[in-house]
Amino acid sequence: MHMAPTFVRANIRAMHGYTPGEQPSPGERVVKLNTNENPFAPSPKVMQAIREIEPEALRRYPHPTADAFREAAAKVLGVAKEMILAGNGSDDILTIATRTFVAPGGVLAYPSPTYSLYSVLAGIEDATTVAVPWEKHWQLPIDALIETKAHAIYLANPNAPSGTLVPCDLVSKLAEKFDGLLLIDEAYVDFAESSCLELASKYDNVVISRTVSKAYSLAGMRFGFAIAQPQVIDQMMKVKDSYNTDAVSIVAATAAIQDQEYARMTWTHVKQERTRVSEELTKLGFDVLPSQANFVLAKAPDGDGKLLYRALKHMGILVRHFDSPGLSDYIRITIGTGQENNALIGGIRELLTKEKAA
Amino acid sequence: MHMAPTFVRANIRAMHGYTPGEQPSPGERVVKLNTNENPFAPSPKVMQAIREIEPEALRRYPHPTADAFREAAAKVLGVAKEMILAGNGSDDILTIATRTFVAPGGVLAYPSPTYSLYSVLAGIEDATTVAVPWEKHWQLPIDALIETKAHAIYLANPNAPSGTLVPCDLVSKLAEKFDGLLLIDEAYVDFAESSCLELASKYDNVVISRTVSKAYSLAGMRFGFAIAQPQVIDQMMKVKDSYNTDAVSIVAATAAIQDQEYARMTWTHVKQERTRVSEELTKLGFDVLPSQANFVLAKAPDGDGKLLYRALKHMGILVRHFDSPGLSDYIRITIGTGQENNALIGGIRELLTKEKAA
Repeated sequence: MHMAPTFVRANIRAMHGYTPGEQPSPGERVVKLNTNENPFAPSPKVMQAIREIEPEALRRYPHPTADAFREAAAKVLGVAKEMILAGNGSDDILTIATRTFVAPGGVLAYPSPTYSLYSVLAGIEDATTVAVPWEKHWQLPIDALIETKAHAIYLANPNAPSGTLVPCDLVSKLAEKFDGLLLIDEAYVDFAESSCLELASKYDNVVISRTVSKAYSLAGMRFGFAIAQPQVIDQMMKVKDSYNTDAVSIVAATAAIQDQEYARMTWTHVKQERTRVSEELTKLGFDVLPSQANFVLAKAPDGDGKLLYRALKHMGILVRHFDSPGLSDYIRITIGTGQENNALIGGIRELLTKEKAA
Repeated sequence: MHMAPTFVRANIRAMHGYTPGEQPSPGERVVKLNTNENPFAPSPKVMQAIREIEPEALRRYPHPTADAFREAAAKVLGVAKEMILAGNGSDDILTIATRTFVAPGGVLAYPSPTYSLYSVLAGIEDATTVAVPWEKHWQLPIDALIETKAHAIYLANPNAPSGTLVPCDLVSKLAEKFDGLLLIDEAYVDFAESSCLELASKYDNVVISRTVSKAYSLAGMRFGFAIAQPQVIDQMMKVKDSYNTDAVSIVAATAAIQDQEYARMTWTHVKQERTRVSEELTKLGFDVLPSQANFVLAKAPDGDGKLLYRALKHMGILVRHFDSPGLSDYIRITIGTGQENNALIGGIRELLTKEKAA
């Protein structure tokens, strides 16, 4: 990193950007269980929709608010189209929300640990963050969050990287008691038993963020969406880039959300494999958190997550390790195909056997 | 528009969003000369690259910094790859720049009239704008811009909606004298006689913004890029969304910029037609600004741009009218295919004949 020029804002100069998970090069052969992609290919209907794109759709500007997707999603979710905002991935939704609701010098609070992007977004905005520790067993610290007097609270539910889910009645209590904006990041919710979707209709200070990256196997496509009351969506519309989604991503995301049968098949598989992987890891001496997402957070038997991450990487198996307080004992494992999950469990078993022998 | 909730930032509540040009529905038959798209379809190589996208490229996260494109663009432009930042359209580049260089309470200056998005971006940032009037004949007000003591100056060159170009030696003087960040928005530069590309290597406070929307017929794809010195790009990288371009747009933009032969063919056509349309309109009594872009700004013979815009729209011909100071006498006409331009000129001739007869 070079010296930052003086004409760069001081808060930007001082901060570090977000670090995305490693992406091996296309040719590299690894078992990739580190960035929570869906193990299934996108629906064949998505691929067909992309192949049918006409040159004219690329030559012209796309629909500025992606209404084809909004209409399809509204039907699937049972909400009005006016309650939906499309974005360039749910990162774009989170960025738009932060710029709409968190002023410079303002306060963004979240239970911690959680998705590390939230603090980066606040940093760019020159806002302050308050990381409120989860209560025991990853329970929601409702009162402590409200006591922060934050302008906005971001809640990943299921949480990343723990995979744990806060029941909706507790989230509802938080929305009820809180005066600011409550963003519920439901990036992983399709792998969970329940969602907080109904809270968007019930409370005007709730924004729900969703994505087609994981549940619909379209991480490469960048398409996310927010659900909130129309008067809230109206304000977020002012902040988004004029054409923030493109002609191809609109067509792909629309085809994806319309093919619920295919998507649900992938969710069922992931949930079954999540149970199996959790059980196998538990047998091997791991402490596995009860996950409602498409990944599990598991504490290594010897409490050294980094060593395990490195040893697995050496074997060609990529998982994610977070070198941060409360997380360094763990590794986070994306649920892959049956074969990938077998490779992971086999790899771990091999490492533990070697360790015992040594 | 509903009442804005109190948990929305005050500056967002108070502002209006950017209004994109009208987009008729897919079935509507209009001669569309209002949003500066290239009249040619994208290169056949782009369409082929999109059709060859593998499901796996959509399932996984894309390359976070679009390096395939950066390498291709570096080669075409003769700069280092590290001097290029990819974005979700040049709107994303402008958003990233504003967030990197213009603090809340800071000042963004620009010669005026210009692209109306600049003031919207400053508004979202809660920064102040200073609109410095162009000197006579759209000459660059160098001293007046510097006297604003702005943190950043945005210069559209060629300018929108005038189409006029500031020669690079004058832009160089501005960069030299100015302490802040000078962003040169070259969205239309491929239709011009010269660019300021060399200033990015010469001055560390210069960022050049480009797009494949117009020059490469990919407005629907959303892909733009910035060129600046690596230590400036590094800072902008912190601000961009982690995965701000997608697997398809990266492939499409890369194929587009690699097919220079095709793109240049389209530029040649547009420039020839621009000359012809300008001459025809002049003959019909219009005052046409000397354009270096893929559109012309032309003052209606009777000085009523709005009336003319409406009359043309009634005939199924869409041009753009700006109801703002210094622009209301004019209409802005995108250079289309020969046939579209003939329809425009024919339509105007018909209107003027009727007017005389009345």
